[in-house]
Amino acid sequence: MKPLDLLEQSLHKRVLVATKGGRSFRGVLDAFDQHLNLVLSSAEEVDQDVVTPRAGVTLVRGDSVVYISP
Amino acid sequence: MKPLDLLEQSLHKRVLVATKGGRSFRGVLDAFDQHLNLVLSSAEEVDQDVVTPRAGVTLVRGDSVVYISP
Amino acid sequence: MKPLDLLEQSLHKRVLVATKGGRSFRGVLDAFDQHLNLVLSSAEEVDQDVVTPRAGVTLVRGDSVVYISP
Amino acid sequence: MKPLDLLEQSLHKRVLVATKGGRSFRGVLDAFDQHLNLVLSSAEEVDQDVVTPRAGVTLVRGDSVVYISP
Amino acid sequence: MKPLDLLEQSLHKRVLVATKGGRSFRGVLDAFDQHLNLVLSSAEEVDQDVVTPRAGVTLVRGDSVVYISP
Amino acid sequence: MKPLDLLEQSLHKRVLVATKGGRSFRGVLDAFDQHLNLVLSSAEEVDQDVVTPRAGVTLVRGDSVVYISP
Amino acid sequence: MKPLDLLEQSLHKRVLVATKGGRSFRGVLDAFDQHLNLVLSSAEEVDQDVVTPRAGVTLVRGDSVVYISP
Repeated sequence: MKPLDLLEQSLHKRVLVATKGGRSFRGVLDAFDQHLNLVLSSAEEVDQDVVTPRAGVTLVRGDSVVYISP
Repeated sequence: MKPLDLLEQSLHKRVLVATKGGRSFRGVLDAFDQHLNLVLSSAEEVDQDVVTPRAGVTLVRGDSVVYISP
Repeated sequence: MKPLDLLEQSLHKRVLVATKGGRSFRGVLDAFDQHLNLVLSSAEEVDQDVVTPRAGVTLVRGDSVVYISP
Repeated sequence: MKPLDLLEQSLHKRVLVATKGGRSFRGVLDAFDQHLNLVLSSAEEVDQDVVTPRAGVTLVRGDSVVYISP
Repeated sequence: MKPLDLLEQSLHKRVLVATKGGRSFRGVLDAFDQHLNLVLSSAEEVDQDVVTPRAGVTLVRGDSVVYISP
Repeated sequence: MKPLDLLEQSLHKRVLVATKGGRSFRGVLDAFDQHLNLVLSSAEEVDQDVVTPRAGVTLVRGDSVVYISP
Repeated sequence: MKPLDLLEQSLHKRVLVATKGGRSFRGVLDAFDQHLNLVLSSAEEVDQDVVTPRAGVTLVRGDSVVYISP
């Protein structure tokens, strides 16, 4: 079983996405592709201690992603 | 449904684009391609607290993009 | 014998994964692919001296990986 | 319509090019390719508050480009 | 003769591997591939003056490698 | 006309090459390829205010290049 | 004539190799490939003012190279 197959188990669930540079996102994983481009809904951005809600869908570019966890 | 399909829903709407290095842009998403090269119109650049309007269309190079949100 | 063949010996065992930017993860290696995308279960994130447990499976993007060791 | 098609509208017009690392250029866009390699004429380099005129044509490597705007 | 052919002369010998970001490893080179993914056994990690032994085999991702020397 | 065609006009002429990380080179452009790997002769390296002459031909790796100007 | 052809003129001669991150190497260029992976013999590493001799052959990964000069 491959990593991206396992990521399918997180579809439509809330995930934490950490990106290069230190910003993180929490949101519902609505879609992803093989580059790890991600679409999050009901997302909020966490930059150190500042939490900013992001309305609608947020697309995170795959090559900015460090890890994705529940 | 794939991430870039979802991005089509943001076409001709106002988006926030965060880039590596900390600069962000707000503008109307007029076009994008599979590399996430983006064209924004009526854009303004936000660098920390400084907001600079950018006349005409601004092209943001895809590999500079961290995320795109409404 | 190639590096990724040797990594198969670590499947389902506890590993330490160091990423660019300084964060590390400890967890059970459940899956990997040729890009070194990794899936860890029972993972904890180690950022300097702060250890944060991560429930469920954590996917670490391959191009963030510096090294993987037992 | 794709981003690079829209960039054709800026050909032979004055543009601002911001690069990774903070340097920017102002000049007339004489040519570009699909990597966003750019040729600027009558260019000046802007590094913080220092403006340096660059005689002749300046070639900016595409993967250094963050954005291009009028 | 190509660089990777010469690296075969270091197989099963002790090498020093310097990675981007400043961490280095000393260990026996058990395997490598064309991306310079490396497997080291009996490895120790050297981060400035701190030496940490790493049990078992350590896989270093090729694109983190700066140089490999005896 | 494409950017690299225009660069041919600088062949055998003195150019300034700025690289990522802040070092620059002045020298005669003897050769280049499509990756923007460059060969400079009679080159000098400029690192802030320190100018170091480099005898013979200097090869600058293309992906280090930010811009090339006369 | 292409950049890598010109580099053949430096084969078996002493070169200076500067890498991203500031470390440099002096040594005899024994081999290179099209990625600019380099093999140096009788090498010494120069990190600011500290010179460290490196016995045997040192392989420098191509994508760490900024420039190579005599």
